[in-house]
This record gives sequence, structure tokens and C-alpha cells, in this order.
Amino acid sequence: MEVRQIVLAKRPEGVPKEGDFRLEETVLRPLQPGEVVLEPLFFSVDPYMRGRMNESPSGAFAIGKAISGAAVARVAESTDETLPVGTIVSGHLPWATRVISNTRQLQQIDTGGIPASAYLGLLGVPGLTGYFGLLHVGKIKAGETVVISGAAGAIGTIIGQIAKLKGCRVIGLAGSADKVRLLKAELGYDEVINYKTDNIPEALKTACPKGIDVYFDNTGGEISDRVIQQLNMFGRAVICGQIATYNGGHGKDALDLLPFILNRSITVQGYHVPTYQERFPDAIEELSGWYKKGIIKNQETVLEGFEQLPAAFIGLFSGKNTGKMLVRV
Amino acid sequence: MEVRQIVLAKRPEGVPKEGDFRLEETVLRPLQPGEVVLEPLFFSVDPYMRGRMNESPSGAFAIGKAISGAAVARVAESTDETLPVGTIVSGHLPWATRVISNTRQLQQIDTGGIPASAYLGLLGVPGLTGYFGLLHVGKIKAGETVVISGAAGAIGTIIGQIAKLKGCRVIGLAGSADKVRLLKAELGYDEVINYKTDNIPEALKTACPKGIDVYFDNTGGEISDRVIQQLNMFGRAVICGQIATYNGGHGKDALDLLPFILNRSITVQGYHVPTYQERFPDAIEELSGWYKKGIIKNQETVLEGFEQLPAAFIGLFSGKNTGKMLVRV
Repeated sequence: MEVRQIVLAKRPEGVPKEGDFRLEETVLRPLQPGEVVLEPLFFSVDPYMRGRMNESPSGAFAIGKAISGAAVARVAESTDETLPVGTIVSGHLPWATRVISNTRQLQQIDTGGIPASAYLGLLGVPGLTGYFGLLHVGKIKAGETVVISGAAGAIGTIIGQIAKLKGCRVIGLAGSADKVRLLKAELGYDEVINYKTDNIPEALKTACPKGIDVYFDNTGGEISDRVIQQLNMFGRAVICGQIATYNGGHGKDALDLLPFILNRSITVQGYHVPTYQERFPDAIEELSGWYKKGIIKNQETVLEGFEQLPAAFIGLFSGKNTGKMLVRV
Repeated sequence: MEVRQIVLAKRPEGVPKEGDFRLEETVLRPLQPGEVVLEPLFFSVDPYMRGRMNESPSGAFAIGKAISGAAVARVAESTDETLPVGTIVSGHLPWATRVISNTRQLQQIDTGGIPASAYLGLLGVPGLTGYFGLLHVGKIKAGETVVISGAAGAIGTIIGQIAKLKGCRVIGLAGSADKVRLLKAELGYDEVINYKTDNIPEALKTACPKGIDVYFDNTGGEISDRVIQQLNMFGRAVICGQIATYNGGHGKDALDLLPFILNRSITVQGYHVPTYQERFPDAIEELSGWYKKGIIKNQETVLEGFEQLPAAFIGLFSGKNTGKMLVRV
């Protein structure tokens, strides 16, 4: 059977370009016992993948091999009766239109009342990252003020809603007037600052009359230094993403944050969600419950067509997405 | 009775100078009921006092008024039978050779087997700061590697010993060959890096073959950025002092630490010891016990004579002290 796949053509320099990727045709090898053929339905593109495109002793994507990432897929052929044809699964899959997979690496997902794509957003890594980051690392409390960078991104659109649900005042930082409008009108943000046009320190002071208790950082860069400088006594900064730095750059004009961190007894904590892996099932149950009750939305930007994967990935770095960026195959 | 006092003559610019202080003579007013006359024995000079010398809406020392700080004193006259003449007390006192004090603001100290001056070092704010910072904020565990900046200072000389006691590998950063020798020979440091002459990143790599788990920061400045960059996964940085920045300066060439903090799930936490005030008595008991058993030393540098107070304070910023800097009145 003919299959299309997208490989890493060369290691990107700075912001990735279309030419760093190559669309290829290949054929599927025969199926072995215990394997299934998957038909991917949605692929997730995520900022962390940029790091894997660099040369590295471990974890780097190989040149000339298919890139891989989070996906949801339908079982198209099966040798395993626990995963019959038609089953919907999530897993880490190569960027290809048909994929042979070991069934042990797949998770069957419940699509009753929940769209499959939500398992790449609200019920996937972004949702879990936001959930544990906000509740277990940031330890938000009702009445606190939470500032979120990358507010319109995959994680930002989720944590803004969770923070509101928990009784916080929620301020977002986003990069366009459309995003500012959407976050306030649809996702319940109290205020949203356009970091490209507003004066950030002043806008923060106006939006946060009681100061900032928790900063959830999805972007890094100069914005983060400015927010951390305005944290209250015992403020917490959850460092969750640094997309502003993934293509190189920043550093020269960094502020020395340590004196602020000392003066206000601030905690700045970097965090990766696998630390909380054992508690994922409970978190997914709670997030699903909120979704089914209509308390929380799953915001996504979907590009149509397998060949859009490089464009979708590249688009992350100029903020082309609102919510989770996905490609429908 | 004639009394000498030292007042703030003017607000220092940058590093304080002798001319920023003035020695004056004054007289004691008559004693009121509930008051005592104290004869200060030792005054502590501390880096945080530099901040109080700046103009500030709250907490600034007033121009023309006596500077004040931690001290131990002997009761010389008393109207309160609970504090008879001869009692040794600690408290926050003005820089003067005789002081009238409200007895409620004084703490009687136990000098049986413990020198009075230790209540300004090991059993005072420096000891408590080190104790809670290392054990409760840094959460050191046996077998971990701990790096300490300002290792020869009031806090550094204490925490190096506590970290050894708890089974850690302990690496110090200090600013002279004499300090390097003393820390290794007398205070049990495994290795000490001379930050003025050694290449810090390389010296850290050599001294910490298993990387760095906890960084206890007493100084701030560029050194701290370098150490934090070498922290292990789940490393902790306890930000306890920033003496390198108290006279202004630093910031321009600061590194952007947030990407490192994220990559290695690092926690950087600023901390002030009053947060742990309720547990002070237990900590003092444990520290006293270690001292009496000879497990831990109280290192101090004592300048002789009341009029040495400005020189002692100024000396902090060029590292003239090893251990706690004190003035014997």
C-alpha cells in the first residue's frame, strides 16, 4: 500500500522553513502478529519538537527519517483482538498516512461525547501540563491573580479556563487583537494584554491592581522577566514553555531576576508533566468531566491535509494558532 | 552619662564609605519603669543593612539618627526584676555604647557553654537562615552535591558544616587563598573554588563530578548564573543573599536562566528566615546541641572597638570577614 510520510530534510537554522522538511512516498511492510495498521486522523504539532530537530546526543530526529509526534488514529487493520478495526487510539506516531504500530504503545480513547482531537489538547499533554502546572506547581488559590503568557496557545487556552474555575483573576498575554477578543469573549479571561502593541509593565499594573500571585510561563523571553519583576510576596512562576528561545536568540538583554526572587520570597519552578504521570488518569477524568458539563472548552486550530504538517509546525512560532494546533490528515 | 553613637551622615552611593557615617556624643535620658540600660558587648554588621541606607518609603535608616542592628548586651541598670543587672540579652539595638531599652524587646540568652557572640552567628539570624534554607527550602539529601557562594561568610561557614553533617558533598566559592585554605582545613568543605582566580564553570565541573543538586546563594551576581546553569535535573537554588548587587551594578550581562530552569525542572526559590519563625526554638536547640558536642564551629571575625563599626560594615562588601563579622564594643 502506498504511504506518504514527511521526513526531516535538514536541521533547521533559527525558525524552521518548508525546505527543512520533505514529503516522500514509501510502502508499508507486511504486518507482524501483535501489530496494527493505523490510519492517523489528527497529528499534533508542538513547540518542543523544535528542540528535537537540533543535533543532540540523545532524542534528536534523524535526518531523512519521518518526524514523529502525538496523534490520534483509527485502527485500519489488526492482528490483535483487543484493538479491533475501527478502534480510536492515541499514541506517538511517525508523520505518515499509514503507520504500523505495536499495540502496546497505543492507548484506546473514549470518544463518547468527546471529539478524538481533544485527546491532543484538553485531554492530552497540553491539558495535563496546564492542570498539574497550575494546581500542583503554581498552587493557585481562589482570589489570587494569575498571569499567563502564550494565553492563546494550546496550554494557555486551557489554564485560563481552569484558573477562572478555581476563582482566580486571570490575565493573559497574547499577540494579536483577534486573540485578545477571543480570550475575553469565549474563554473567560478577565483582561488580555497584547504584548506586541501594549506597554507590558504598565498594562500589567492596570490589569492587576492586587499584583500578580502566579505567573504561568509558556513563552519565556523578555515578557517573562517583566512579569516576574511584578510578582507579589511569595509569588510563584511556573516555567512551562520557552518558545521565544527555541529558535535561538534572547539572553543578551535578560534581567537579573535573582534580587527580585530574593526580595519577594518568590519561587520560580521549571516543570515537565511526566513528573506527575501516576496521577494522569485522575486528571483526565476531572478534565473530561468539566468538558462534558460544558464548563471548559477545547480550543483548537485545525489545518486540513497531511501535507500541511510542516506549515502547521512552522506556524507555531509566529502564533498562527489559537488553542491546540492540529493537522487533520 | 556620656554615650557615643554612630549615625548615618548621608545616604551612600554605591559602596559605603567612612564619610557616610558620623560618631557623635550624646547623653542618656532618665530611665522609665520597665526599661533597662544596656551595655552592648557585640554588634553584628550585616549586608541587608545596606538596603536600609537607601531612601525608601519604609524601613530606611533616618539621616542623622543612630543606625541599628543585631547585638548582644549586658544589663547595666534595671527597673525590671526579670532582667537583673548582669543578665546577657540579645536584641535589635542602636549603634551606641549605652542603650535604654524596653525589656519586652530583649531575649535573655543562655551563655552556659556558649559564647554570647554565637547568638549573632550560629545561633542568630545567620545560623537560622542557613538551617532552614538548607534543610527546608533546599531540602538537601545525603549523597547530594551542594554548592555554596559566599562560603566564607557568616551563613556560608555554617551551612557548609551542616551540609557535611547531613552527608552531602560540599563545594564552596570564596574570594581569597586564605579563605579557601580555612574552609577546607577547618570547616570540612570538600573543595573550594576561588571565584576571583579560577575559571568558575570549569572548576565547578571538576569539583562536582556528579553535577550540582543544590545551590545555596549568598552573593548573587554572575557566579550565581554560572552555578544555576550547571544544576542537575530537579536541582534547587536557594536564593538567600545578593550582596553582589546591594551597592548597585550587575544586570547588564545577566543570563536568561528560564530555559535552563525549564529544561532541568529546576526550582529557584527566594527566601527570608522569618517565614520559619515559629520553628526557631527547635532549630536553636539543635544548633546549640551540635555546637556543644563540637560537631559544628562558630566562625567569626571580630573587630575591636565601638568606633570600628563603619569599617566592619564596609568590609563586608570586600569580603574582609571570615564567618560572622562582629564588633566588640
